[in-house]
Amino acid sequence: MNAHRPMPDAMLQALRDRFGDRCSTAQAVRDQHGRDESAYDAAPPDAVVFCESNEDVIDAVKLADRFEVPVIPFGVGSSLEGHLLAVQGGISLDLSRMNRVLRVNAEDLTVTVQAGVTRTQLNREIRDTGLFFPIDPGADASLGGMAATRASGTNAVRYGTMRENVLGLGVVTASGEWIRTGTRARKSAAGYDLTRLFVGSEGTLGVMTEVTLKLYPLPEAVSAAICHFPDIDAAVRTTIMTIQMGVPIARVELVDANTVGLVNRHSGLQLAERPMLLMEFHGSPASVAEQAQTVQDIAAEHGGEAFEWASTPEERTRLWTARHHAYFAAIQSRPGCRAMSTDACVPISRLAELIAESVADVDASGLPYFLVGHVGDGNFHFGYLIDPDQPAERELAEALNHRLVERTLRMEGTCSGEHGVGLHKMGFLLDEAGAGTVGLMRAIKRALDPKDILNPGKIFVV
Amino acid sequence: MNAHRPMPDAMLQALRDRFGDRCSTAQAVRDQHGRDESAYDAAPPDAVVFCESNEDVIDAVKLADRFEVPVIPFGVGSSLEGHLLAVQGGISLDLSRMNRVLRVNAEDLTVTVQAGVTRTQLNREIRDTGLFFPIDPGADASLGGMAATRASGTNAVRYGTMRENVLGLGVVTASGEWIRTGTRARKSAAGYDLTRLFVGSEGTLGVMTEVTLKLYPLPEAVSAAICHFPDIDAAVRTTIMTIQMGVPIARVELVDANTVGLVNRHSGLQLAERPMLLMEFHGSPASVAEQAQTVQDIAAEHGGEAFEWASTPEERTRLWTARHHAYFAAIQSRPGCRAMSTDACVPISRLAELIAESVADVDASGLPYFLVGHVGDGNFHFGYLIDPDQPAERELAEALNHRLVERTLRMEGTCSGEHGVGLHKMGFLLDEAGAGTVGLMRAIKRALDPKDILNPGKIFVV
Repeated sequence: MNAHRPMPDAMLQALRDRFGDRCSTAQAVRDQHGRDESAYDAAPPDAVVFCESNEDVIDAVKLADRFEVPVIPFGVGSSLEGHLLAVQGGISLDLSRMNRVLRVNAEDLTVTVQAGVTRTQLNREIRDTGLFFPIDPGADASLGGMAATRASGTNAVRYGTMRENVLGLGVVTASGEWIRTGTRARKSAAGYDLTRLFVGSEGTLGVMTEVTLKLYPLPEAVSAAICHFPDIDAAVRTTIMTIQMGVPIARVELVDANTVGLVNRHSGLQLAERPMLLMEFHGSPASVAEQAQTVQDIAAEHGGEAFEWASTPEERTRLWTARHHAYFAAIQSRPGCRAMSTDACVPISRLAELIAESVADVDASGLPYFLVGHVGDGNFHFGYLIDPDQPAERELAEALNHRLVERTLRMEGTCSGEHGVGLHKMGFLLDEAGAGTVGLMRAIKRALDPKDILNPGKIFVV
Repeated sequence: MNAHRPMPDAMLQALRDRFGDRCSTAQAVRDQHGRDESAYDAAPPDAVVFCESNEDVIDAVKLADRFEVPVIPFGVGSSLEGHLLAVQGGISLDLSRMNRVLRVNAEDLTVTVQAGVTRTQLNREIRDTGLFFPIDPGADASLGGMAATRASGTNAVRYGTMRENVLGLGVVTASGEWIRTGTRARKSAAGYDLTRLFVGSEGTLGVMTEVTLKLYPLPEAVSAAICHFPDIDAAVRTTIMTIQMGVPIARVELVDANTVGLVNRHSGLQLAERPMLLMEFHGSPASVAEQAQTVQDIAAEHGGEAFEWASTPEERTRLWTARHHAYFAAIQSRPGCRAMSTDACVPISRLAELIAESVADVDASGLPYFLVGHVGDGNFHFGYLIDPDQPAERELAEALNHRLVERTLRMEGTCSGEHGVGLHKMGFLLDEAGAGTVGLMRAIKRALDPKDILNPGKIFVV
């Protein structure tokens, strides 16, 4: 199914004629564009085209259409499920030079950017407006890439995901036509929601070149808090009650006891090695104080101890150390390892049970791991720390993840909260959605990309 | 394009065999199902089938597929743009008996309902949970219908629209297969967002039979406020600043001076005949008081006067009288008239300008009207009060709406904030989205409904 499709010489010549130096076939450039942050070995494209404008993307896609060669949009390469691998060859369209913030409309709380703008660049450039773009998946990803994978992160519990925050798109279709979806209006009931169809389509339905996003006022006050719990169930119960009470918490992250231990050893800290919640509150000073007090009371009812809160940026950063350092502390605890990440998301009432069963499973396996969770959304990540040179460890991690996803689906959850399907979860998607529903996705794909040139071989088998 | 497709006798016989009395061809029943709240004359279906289960819908759609006969899902008949007219004949699938709340998961803040459950029924049935479903389009619409038209209403500024609040669907496809989209997880990056594709598809891609929705905690405190402004621009500026300051206002509605006058005469009130904002705040008692104070200060800076606020349900209802009575006051001001509603939505920075130009236009025409707006979203409705027996008045109203939509599109808005396209806005959708984008919608429609049996002739020409 993923046979390499040969790139005709005439196509390469046409790309060179059109793009000159901006079309590269250098091995190092191809290698860099044929991988992502997943554990897959690289599958390099035949060529990389550095696009600088909509016209560049249009012309590259038109050539790909003519020669029936795959096209894979590339932002910064931070995706996690093999999205960027050129499993059928073709060209990687590097959009990182399409990095202009095109229009800020502060009164409307909207911004339009080229797809290659990263989220930290955006927030830097709009700092003077008093607004910000909240979605934070960890990596400094491109906004086009974040839209393509329906990314979210630590503050989705309050601000939503890319699903809720993209107002409109500029997209190059499979035939090389540039179209616009959505408007700058906050809502619309005008026709099919193509914006939401493209968001999360992982480059398989079109190449996004422009993204119009919602912005939010920078909160007048921000406070952070941490609290230790006797067990994960108590931490999850605290979160459920917090949300049920209507506290508009901005972030609520779980770090498990094992991971706190890794951070202690990495950073020379003496945090209690018990499950922790790390929280952030946004609002007016009075509202933030009230939110923190409410959550402190709820936590106390659930055995939460050592509730600490802080309002200055420095103190907030200190409190959140365990969360910020979790990944690096884990990676460095096992030199040479790679982290294979899971991405399950369930209704929050099932979260503690799912984590408990899955922790028992990984503990029994002996594989080291870290565990962090966007607990307000029911989404969490194990990072299984595997030796990439030991196929048995990779298989073990895959088996653990497989059982985790089975449990997740039994609990009415999803195999992917925020990373997407890519290559890695094609089987899980079928298990989750069923053949009929995936059949509809496939019908849409065939209708919009009849030659299967747009990031082929991802999400499902066409 | 909208030729009546004859219903074969064999189909009618098969429907009668399968559904007995629940298949009706009585003229009164057909007439009732061939109209909605739009100004169109009825276009009755050939038969009406009263469905009571997924199996009923599946079997009816399978027959429609076999005989290539149109199928139009029907909830309570409150749509506004001709969505329900059987312009090509066929069968109306009345889902109003599919009215069971299937599962409430209070800890997860989710509920799954059959498509015929209405929003007030839902809120009545879940009252004991301390949760509520906020979306309020005015009419007591069915939740399936609200999903199908991507409805919203007065509190979308805080809680979003059906786009943000549907987690998953059960859908009967064009071939009569029942599929599920989404899960009960709050977010997902697993494959194409079919849920969002079906939401707002107006029955043209599938028949929704089950809807899983987000719920919200009933706010601990609710307060309402009203304020009068020297002009609409001042009211809109107040709203913009309120949102930019991050005040989580739950409702902010504009009623223009002319409409306040209609309400005064209808209800014997003495409200100042100037533009009004009617607001609602949700949260803790302290937060609600702070929100109201902040908005009062902002309003004062913009010449807002007579700011009044109230916390008891009775007082809130009294304050909001002008909004609640606007429609009936307007309709009764001109006996025998019908209101033709517009539905423009623009980025809020353009709202005052759009309203001013459009008010000047309708004032010059001499046509009576009312004007209310979900001003926080940039969405507002003129109700042009036309004599349905005067074709010239209908034409005048259409011409006014046409110019309004032209202005709206120039200002980067949408022809429909919340009512949908139906029959009435097919031309506007093309103007707004462009032929390329509508071409993608059409390709999707053809892929999912190759025989064009699902509510044909709506949204765009296939």
